[in-house]
Amino acid sequence: MSESTHIIFRRKPNGLPISEDFELVRSPTPAVADGQFLVENLYLSLDPYVRMLMDGETWTFRGAGLTPGQVMPGRCVGVVRESRHPAYAAGQHLVGHFGWQTHAVQDEAAVEFYVPPQSGVPLSAWLGACGATGLTAWLGLQTIGEPRPGETVVVSAAAGSVGSAAGQLARAWGCRVIGIAGGDEKCRLVTEEFGFDAACDYKRPDFARDLRDQTPDGVDVYFDNVGGAMLDEILARMNPGGRIPVCGVLSQYNLASEFPGLRNTRLIFDKRLRMQGYLVTEGRHLWPRARAELEAMVAAGKLNYRETVAEGLPAAPGAFIRMLQGGNIGKQLVRVAP
Amino acid sequence: MSESTHIIFRRKPNGLPISEDFELVRSPTPAVADGQFLVENLYLSLDPYVRMLMDGETWTFRGAGLTPGQVMPGRCVGVVRESRHPAYAAGQHLVGHFGWQTHAVQDEAAVEFYVPPQSGVPLSAWLGACGATGLTAWLGLQTIGEPRPGETVVVSAAAGSVGSAAGQLARAWGCRVIGIAGGDEKCRLVTEEFGFDAACDYKRPDFARDLRDQTPDGVDVYFDNVGGAMLDEILARMNPGGRIPVCGVLSQYNLASEFPGLRNTRLIFDKRLRMQGYLVTEGRHLWPRARAELEAMVAAGKLNYRETVAEGLPAAPGAFIRMLQGGNIGKQLVRVAP
Repeated sequence: MSESTHIIFRRKPNGLPISEDFELVRSPTPAVADGQFLVENLYLSLDPYVRMLMDGETWTFRGAGLTPGQVMPGRCVGVVRESRHPAYAAGQHLVGHFGWQTHAVQDEAAVEFYVPPQSGVPLSAWLGACGATGLTAWLGLQTIGEPRPGETVVVSAAAGSVGSAAGQLARAWGCRVIGIAGGDEKCRLVTEEFGFDAACDYKRPDFARDLRDQTPDGVDVYFDNVGGAMLDEILARMNPGGRIPVCGVLSQYNLASEFPGLRNTRLIFDKRLRMQGYLVTEGRHLWPRARAELEAMVAAGKLNYRETVAEGLPAAPGAFIRMLQGGNIGKQLVRVAP
Repeated sequence: MSESTHIIFRRKPNGLPISEDFELVRSPTPAVADGQFLVENLYLSLDPYVRMLMDGETWTFRGAGLTPGQVMPGRCVGVVRESRHPAYAAGQHLVGHFGWQTHAVQDEAAVEFYVPPQSGVPLSAWLGACGATGLTAWLGLQTIGEPRPGETVVVSAAAGSVGSAAGQLARAWGCRVIGIAGGDEKCRLVTEEFGFDAACDYKRPDFARDLRDQTPDGVDVYFDNVGGAMLDEILARMNPGGRIPVCGVLSQYNLASEFPGLRNTRLIFDKRLRMQGYLVTEGRHLWPRARAELEAMVAAGKLNYRETVAEGLPAAPGAFIRMLQGGNIGKQLVRVAP
């Protein structure tokens, strides 16, 4: 009988998690029952929302709060090793919620999608630019941002995995794209590696003027990852009829009580803006179309991305903790099997 | 040759307009050229946005800033007295931007719509519940709010002409509707005359608790006329996937510099809310459908409204000034011709 390795949620962290909040356990791989299959995980995606689940609270559409003893939850790309479900066959690659473990016996409910057999992109891309990350960028732009060729699109957290994908998509669709990032190095990444038309460094004292200079025709779409004071700044630059997909509120995850409040919201009325939060899970019917476009762009070298890959499942807790401190560049992954 | 009376914009007001900012003039009614028609105004609508135009600034989609000597702009219902345009015939009733005057020679560009010949509602209703007021309520709800039967809809400024129409529409569409208004009298109007399920008085110290008690299942649609602190309060009551048509920012027209800022905007992301400003002029293609529904509801006594009517064109400046001070109940009109 084969053995699996799992990372277990041990206890609720006090602030930033520490390694003692996790536990590595080994157990015999359970038998596959009717309607189930055994998947071997190849890559695991580490994502900040999992930290919220560790507080035990359930976040609608993100998942149930964790209780001690559960396997840490996470999206993986894996290969089917054994199947007693007609829709899955040994050798097939799947993306799904298979957890922080080397092997898992799963059923249909855990599966997000099949990886195409003749995939022209690296397997890990199905967790990033061709997976949840790229889909998040694509859906926010297509269903809320609706950028038209020639329009100006501003993207915050532009060096990050979602922001960099959003900017490259908008550019491929014919827009002028300005990225906002912190520091010279990230700004260089935004223009040189991700091909944005320009980058503005929000840490510079002249940020507001830089942004104005880079958006002489105003802003039609603001892809917002950040919220807070930056959103206020950009509300003032929006053109009438502008759209703001709200994909995250990075600035406020830890600072809610200190945020002085958004002052320019009356512009939502004055300029007839549309501002809308969304989650990637809501646009499932559009995923196949989005994935096909993302895969084609990655394969053609038109959608670049960065990854930080930790080696081996035991490295997952440490990589997760470093990621929460901002120690990763691009998508944080764990290579679970060589 | 017949004579017309006009109210002319004389000078930019300093704060609240005074009667010296207007001038009443009489002039011979000009001849009707090819492609024009002569309209006699019956009712004139007085609207707060005209005050903004008196500052000389142009507001996109609301109109051009005024220069001294121009006729004061306003929407009217009038009757065609003479026509040299094939689409208009003497005796027809029209709604259009015919200005603060007894007669006007106009062309097609000024016309908003024909009043149906067998109209089952009073003529003045075409400037209110069946006109811009009702259309504003209908469009915000239908194109952004999208209330579904059984959902909870909250309306601010619920005793006002747009708010009261929005609430009655949502109720006709099967929603539970809560109105927010200031003071006992307005709250009584909201429930007794406009038939809302409940009213909450925002002047009461227990307002937040009242609102919570009246929305035990949360809020699915917030029809926002007010912005500011009330919007913040209601963001906290919104259900995931909720919609907020932003139809006005009454609270902020004069207080922008004192508003402390909206604190709960991260909930737009957390709850995947849609918040969108709009203007009635954007949904022109939906007007015929909306007007038919509004007319049927008014004719059937299912859409109640209030009017304050000033008698005679010379009364227009005084009525306008009183309206800006909140001295009207419901739609402020001037009966231009008996």
